[in-house]
Amino acid sequence: MADIARRPEHRYGNRPTMKDVAARAGVGLKTVSRVVNGEPGVTPETERRVQEAIEILGFRRNDSARVLRKGRTATVGLVLEDLADPFYGPLSRAVEEVARAHGALLINGSSAEDPGREQELALALCARRVDGLIVIPAGDDHRYLEPEIRAGVATVFVDRPAGLIDADAVLSDSFGGARDGVAHLIAHGHRRIGFIGDRPRIHTAAERLRGYRAAMEDAGLPVQDAWVSPGSTDPERVRTAVREMLAAPEPVTALFAGNNRVMVTVVRALAEHPRPVALVGFDDIELADLLGVTVIAQDAAALGRTAAERLFRRLDGADEAPERVVLGTTLLARGSGEIPPPAA
Amino acid sequence: MADIARRPEHRYGNRPTMKDVAARAGVGLKTVSRVVNGEPGVTPETERRVQEAIEILGFRRNDSARVLRKGRTATVGLVLEDLADPFYGPLSRAVEEVARAHGALLINGSSAEDPGREQELALALCARRVDGLIVIPAGDDHRYLEPEIRAGVATVFVDRPAGLIDADAVLSDSFGGARDGVAHLIAHGHRRIGFIGDRPRIHTAAERLRGYRAAMEDAGLPVQDAWVSPGSTDPERVRTAVREMLAAPEPVTALFAGNNRVMVTVVRALAEHPRPVALVGFDDIELADLLGVTVIAQDAAALGRTAAERLFRRLDGADEAPERVVLGTTLLARGSGEIPPPAA
Repeated sequence: MADIARRPEHRYGNRPTMKDVAARAGVGLKTVSRVVNGEPGVTPETERRVQEAIEILGFRRNDSARVLRKGRTATVGLVLEDLADPFYGPLSRAVEEVARAHGALLINGSSAEDPGREQELALALCARRVDGLIVIPAGDDHRYLEPEIRAGVATVFVDRPAGLIDADAVLSDSFGGARDGVAHLIAHGHRRIGFIGDRPRIHTAAERLRGYRAAMEDAGLPVQDAWVSPGSTDPERVRTAVREMLAAPEPVTALFAGNNRVMVTVVRALAEHPRPVALVGFDDIELADLLGVTVIAQDAAALGRTAAERLFRRLDGADEAPERVVLGTTLLARGSGEIPPPAA
Repeated sequence: MADIARRPEHRYGNRPTMKDVAARAGVGLKTVSRVVNGEPGVTPETERRVQEAIEILGFRRNDSARVLRKGRTATVGLVLEDLADPFYGPLSRAVEEVARAHGALLINGSSAEDPGREQELALALCARRVDGLIVIPAGDDHRYLEPEIRAGVATVFVDRPAGLIDADAVLSDSFGGARDGVAHLIAHGHRRIGFIGDRPRIHTAAERLRGYRAAMEDAGLPVQDAWVSPGSTDPERVRTAVREMLAAPEPVTALFAGNNRVMVTVVRALAEHPRPVALVGFDDIELADLLGVTVIAQDAAALGRTAAERLFRRLDGADEAPERVVLGTTLLARGSGEIPPPAA
């Protein structure tokens, strides 16, 4: 029985929790918390029952939470994927603000979209005793983090989910957002719509491509291979894709840009193009409003805030099962997405 | 004499260096390096002389450099002042690239423009055994870092200089850049030019304001108090400043924006203004080219790269006196800075 209690199916890090102790002792969570923290207000008989449950279950108070209580400045680590991508600016700052509200420091690093570097950095942060970790993953196998999570390092993924481990993740609705953006172009009369996105091994990129295909299929529109261009966000690569799609015998009349890096280059390329081409981009960026670029906006700050709040709930001892939170996107119509196709 | 050698005037961290040892032993730096690192190619007599000099001077090899050589992943810390300011994106990424080229990890944190937070973060990074530190300072007293520097943590300041300590700094020419930008507006016929900048206790903000005043004075133009608005970069504050300068009985005909945060708000405010107003901004930002905004561009990546290369030279044992490196700025004329004043 103790063995079963030690391995509850839904537990984070597979450790018995205060809730388990409370259930076994037949008391409330607050009572367990009082006993564990040596606070007054518990009868000797109740304390005995709680201590017994703690022993039977092999409960250990979360080390990170204890560290937080002991007064050492708590530190949380944030693993980014690109220091120069403006999308991560408000996300990082939101994480920092939540950390500060909890009296904790935030330290960041970047994987530069390299899974090996992500692992090296995440483990280096753990070795430097961060109490919790927020990860924007570059890789798709995070089993290397399991020992850290088991050892009490609270871990939350943001922007992209964890791979091969069950962990909290806070994501934008990439699929739904892309589908809405492409449907918006279709509603404005477009039938030949190009998709230029990031590398499809990146979760968000794959989801947005799936959203594009779903919108086209929902409208009964075929998708030609030449209209789909996944790949790097390198400006030359994106420029070539735009040029080819617009120079085809049956050129696209509208483009969907899969992220802000792609969008910036597409905006530049279209500024040089002789006739207007409709555009919807995924991600809002500064000044896109003044340029009239219609976008599917993500709330980067809300992603960071939600992930950080979840992290601190874990550090405070919350024992919920890992959860995936998906935040909605918003279509901001500013002109470029409302350009009609040329008269046939 | 040993006492004097231990306190050479121009030394970084006041420690005897390999150069001191070389001078005392009457050999070259490479020879000292060979002895210190146990490499071959030194005669027993020379080695004896070097060892003697090492003992007399109390020379200790730089700990950080030794850590780097021992194979543990080296780590450098970067203290930013605002995670969401896009200016720091390319700067951070450049630091990261240099770090990676040296096989080192980079971890970042932000002071959020709070001197206390800067100190807390810098010392927290030192406590987590970073080998070197690059600091964009929020405060103006960095004596708290002296024990760390003496203990071997290489430290380079970037974007703004250190306060009250002698340390490497890599800066943009804020004074010269602002003077050039304002002179450009004067050359296009403007006589009443407004300056909206960041808080003047920030070094770059003070330097840019000084550049504005110098350009006006060089041209024999008076500066009215109402034309100078230093303060926070809060959009409402900046909008109010723009509105007041344009609504005055003798309104300004041109504006100089002291940094990219101010510039973005000024661009938005002028987009709603009924008549064209000339604008030059300090800092280039993404898409400013498509909006035709004339800017004084800093090379943020070069700032980061130069600072990081200097840091790694220190970590590799370089013993030069602390230096201030000032990088030039570039005026990019794109239209907004070339708008003439309205016909009188």
